[in-house]
Amino acid sequence: MAWYNMTGESSDTVISTRVRFARNLAGYNFDSTLGEKEAREIIEKISDIFTPAMGFERIDLNEKNRLEALSYVEKHFISREFAAKKTPHTLLLSEKFNTAVMVCEEDHVRLQTILPGLSLNEAYEDLCRFDDQLDSNVQIAYDEKLGYLTHCPTNLGTGMRASVMMFLPALTMAKQIGGIASQLSKIGLTIRGMYGEGSESRGSLYQISNQVTLGVSEEETIRKLSEIVAQISNRERKLRATLKDDRFDALKDKVLRAEGTLRYAHMLSSAETTELFSLVRLGVAMGIIEDVDCAMLSRILVETAPATLTLTSEKELKTDTERDIARAEKIKAVLPM
Amino acid sequence: MAWYNMTGESSDTVISTRVRFARNLAGYNFDSTLGEKEAREIIEKISDIFTPAMGFERIDLNEKNRLEALSYVEKHFISREFAAKKTPHTLLLSEKFNTAVMVCEEDHVRLQTILPGLSLNEAYEDLCRFDDQLDSNVQIAYDEKLGYLTHCPTNLGTGMRASVMMFLPALTMAKQIGGIASQLSKIGLTIRGMYGEGSESRGSLYQISNQVTLGVSEEETIRKLSEIVAQISNRERKLRATLKDDRFDALKDKVLRAEGTLRYAHMLSSAETTELFSLVRLGVAMGIIEDVDCAMLSRILVETAPATLTLTSEKELKTDTERDIARAEKIKAVLPM
Repeated sequence: MAWYNMTGESSDTVISTRVRFARNLAGYNFDSTLGEKEAREIIEKISDIFTPAMGFERIDLNEKNRLEALSYVEKHFISREFAAKKTPHTLLLSEKFNTAVMVCEEDHVRLQTILPGLSLNEAYEDLCRFDDQLDSNVQIAYDEKLGYLTHCPTNLGTGMRASVMMFLPALTMAKQIGGIASQLSKIGLTIRGMYGEGSESRGSLYQISNQVTLGVSEEETIRKLSEIVAQISNRERKLRATLKDDRFDALKDKVLRAEGTLRYAHMLSSAETTELFSLVRLGVAMGIIEDVDCAMLSRILVETAPATLTLTSEKELKTDTERDIARAEKIKAVLPM
Repeated sequence: MAWYNMTGESSDTVISTRVRFARNLAGYNFDSTLGEKEAREIIEKISDIFTPAMGFERIDLNEKNRLEALSYVEKHFISREFAAKKTPHTLLLSEKFNTAVMVCEEDHVRLQTILPGLSLNEAYEDLCRFDDQLDSNVQIAYDEKLGYLTHCPTNLGTGMRASVMMFLPALTMAKQIGGIASQLSKIGLTIRGMYGEGSESRGSLYQISNQVTLGVSEEETIRKLSEIVAQISNRERKLRATLKDDRFDALKDKVLRAEGTLRYAHMLSSAETTELFSLVRLGVAMGIIEDVDCAMLSRILVETAPATLTLTSEKELKTDTERDIARAEKIKAVLPM
């Protein structure tokens, strides 16, 4: 099942976990100097490994399916850069395993698994299995000293980026994200707002990931990130408990009004939807709202993102107003009454 | 049945109709120079006319039932000045006839009937019957030339004030109330915001009433007011129809968000409730909201006004927060799901 239809561990503070490996094939130029013929060779080689029999669907991305590509971006299966690429590139996607193989992204191959909630170990182990498949079928560019060779030097070494999408409304309200950011940078981790790079993220969604790939092991990175995420989760939970005592009525009011707006509005922009869902999610996590669950919220957020909404709508959506009305209708249809 | 539990004529533009007669007893001083002993005499005389057998309840207003008095103000049965009076004053109230007899208000007797929707003739006729009762039992101060003698010269003549509470959201949005006000003043009528005297009234509620009582007949006044209210209603309706074409989606969104907030908010102030109900009422009038009716809205507005809410609440409401929570709970309980 797609990650956004499931509830994972620590779903009160963690939306999803993503791990990706950057790999390149020995004997081929990197990205910008890679010829089109060679790119197509690589695409065929990798497509022969991650086959439909293994559960992977091959999607050659081009101008025609641009909306579909954006929808995969909204589902966090692929990067925005990959969707926008002009030169040959192919997606091998297993929705069952929540795993995407991007062929000819910045690196020749990017393997990526995304799971709901906090599941760093599981995502890492899943990915290792797919990496073994890759390794036993092609020659990967690897250096004894530098580790995996990558297009961008910041990925040299493990070539691994592990990231956890956290939901931190209480820490955001208390303006503690800036402090956390400077602490994290000292230990090789980074925190970024999911929507924009500012320290106050829309929807209180933040991505925490490792910065360092050189001179560390994958296991060490995963362990450190897990620890830090657990610590931040606890800080967030403690703060929420304080809110419960001090300003509970004001918070409850805010949360319930957000639910009322989501359920009744005739038009909802994508930005407002994210904000409202953030508040509703907080309400669910704090026990204020009982008839909604977190998986439902992740699913609606994904399904009402612009490209996915346009793709799945029965009507043709041409204007912003039409899209905003369709989004509100979709939300009404999905939320239980 | 109390007026606020019924739906009257033209309920899309008119909330309620009120007519009152000011009367004074011959042989007694007026208001400020009226002694306490004489006031008590008048109270007994009038109480003997409007008896429980006739359907009137006697309520002697004093410090002890101040909250109750305010609740009658919120129900538009009595004036705020009458509720606040320090000297002896008594209310004779028939909720069945929606008629209040204020004894020792500014005038010795003020008879007043309030009915739902537009019902000037009905209210006037009802009141005439009660006035006949009064007339046949006591000597009323009357002058052949000046008509009924009243405390304030602005009431001399008919002693009648007829007023219609209108709901004019489209005219308000289109900023046409100011223009209407200056037109009305030329023909002896006046328009006032229900809440405050500004030209933009909270909740788009306005009271339209006659200014002139001298040299005109009651029937003439009622006829003129009826005509003008019908004209303003039509202007409002035409404007609403334009809204339907031009900016219907934006309006529908505003209306439905108001409904969502009313149904979901944890706390609602009296002022915000009035605003939201105004939008919901517009939604009902325009067919956007179907499961709510106008009588329900009038009833909730009355029942959630501060004093009435405090009186009828099961819990003791001490702070604003407690009152706002109780108000939101009441609204949730009354609106059909």
